[in-house]
Amino acid sequence: MNLILLEASEISPEGLAVLRDERAVHVHEVLRAQAGGRLRAGIVDGPLGEVSVIQSLPHELVLDCTPLASAPVPPRPEVDVLLALPRPKVLGRLLRSLACLGVGRVLLTHAARVEPYYFDAHQLAPDYLGARLREGLSQAKDTRLPVVSVHRSFRRLLEDELDALCPVGPRLVADLVPAAPRLSEACRPRPGERVLVALGPEGGWVDFERELFLARGFVTFGMGERVLRSDVACIAALGLAHEALFTR
Amino acid sequence: MNLILLEASEISPEGLAVLRDERAVHVHEVLRAQAGGRLRAGIVDGPLGEVSVIQSLPHELVLDCTPLASAPVPPRPEVDVLLALPRPKVLGRLLRSLACLGVGRVLLTHAARVEPYYFDAHQLAPDYLGARLREGLSQAKDTRLPVVSVHRSFRRLLEDELDALCPVGPRLVADLVPAAPRLSEACRPRPGERVLVALGPEGGWVDFERELFLARGFVTFGMGERVLRSDVACIAALGLAHEALFTR
Repeated sequence: MNLILLEASEISPEGLAVLRDERAVHVHEVLRAQAGGRLRAGIVDGPLGEVSVIQSLPHELVLDCTPLASAPVPPRPEVDVLLALPRPKVLGRLLRSLACLGVGRVLLTHAARVEPYYFDAHQLAPDYLGARLREGLSQAKDTRLPVVSVHRSFRRLLEDELDALCPVGPRLVADLVPAAPRLSEACRPRPGERVLVALGPEGGWVDFERELFLARGFVTFGMGERVLRSDVACIAALGLAHEALFTR
Repeated sequence: MNLILLEASEISPEGLAVLRDERAVHVHEVLRAQAGGRLRAGIVDGPLGEVSVIQSLPHELVLDCTPLASAPVPPRPEVDVLLALPRPKVLGRLLRSLACLGVGRVLLTHAARVEPYYFDAHQLAPDYLGARLREGLSQAKDTRLPVVSVHRSFRRLLEDELDALCPVGPRLVADLVPAAPRLSEACRPRPGERVLVALGPEGGWVDFERELFLARGFVTFGMGERVLRSDVACIAALGLAHEALFTR
């Protein structure tokens, strides 16, 4: 926990926050904060800076958050991910990793090779997903919460919804296609553009999905001949997309 | 399991292999192989090709491996990783991910911010590590088993052992240093060279370690201002190193 992440609703009009959950335990037991000390903190989708410790007890932490009022809001990460819904067991850990690496939007979609029962998993509950995303932000020292949406129709997502959700920038889809360019070759974002990266289910995309991606302006890229697990592929691709943005 | 991975010792002089473990179950229940069918298979550190199914029962699989005799041996991945020993809970999953992405050698080292008790964890047992690495290879369709070594002295590893283990090619160390170049900028491998990437513990390297890296020819690179979990950083960095090798 490199950052104490707060909801705006947790801060009183006087700028005080009283926390009684694992954040209080962490600050007391791991950081061993003392009254008067300062902690790295931020407000979800808001400023990132420091707060003062008024009191740190084993299960209650009182913070003066007024210094945050003048702190800057970090920029939203410039990469979005379109992801065939992974196995429920993998989903939470993967979303935490994505929030840690930095992602603006995560579109979770059905695909021919996604098992329909994945959509009924408790791991898709907003509270569960939100907790994993906040863990990733606390690790990365960021406040910009990825926006996660769930799409049960791949066709509707691609044909009707995507242009509003991801209007500007390169669109890339990972596939095991021989001679496909690498992401760093296929992705040349211009200033102001966001990068959208699509990653398939364990068994890969089917032809209908491939065709719809191409029709919607996606460029295919490859990551070599190895068959990667979807969570490993996703982390590696997001790292490559950030590299392309940093070195543009 | 995209590949049935065999030990050379499992194959009889006549080219037969009789398997009675989870591979037999997988082939019977998931792949539903029939006698006469062909399966993607390989021998650890040996050829990668196809074998014929002689018999597939729920708990016994008999394979004719003679076609492997003339199959090619895949090249060894050209990236090596030097890794501050991660938390035991993370280690197995991370090694599976590294074997999946492709790594030649994994040097697990002590560092100032590694808890010494990590070295006593059962997850460091060769059988446990080997099983995780084989899972990664089966996923990736590769036979080249990463060579894992454990180094309890960081100084001895860097000063006395590293040049023999990783003799030729760029050496890179990840660090949270402002204005450090990105990996794609710092890493320009020439043909025939291998890339060595070093990644620190959760709390980062200490100054003594940084200085020793620089003295041993490492170049520092950054992956942005975010504080990444060490497993996420490792997967992203390995992806970037492979990209640098592919696009050289």
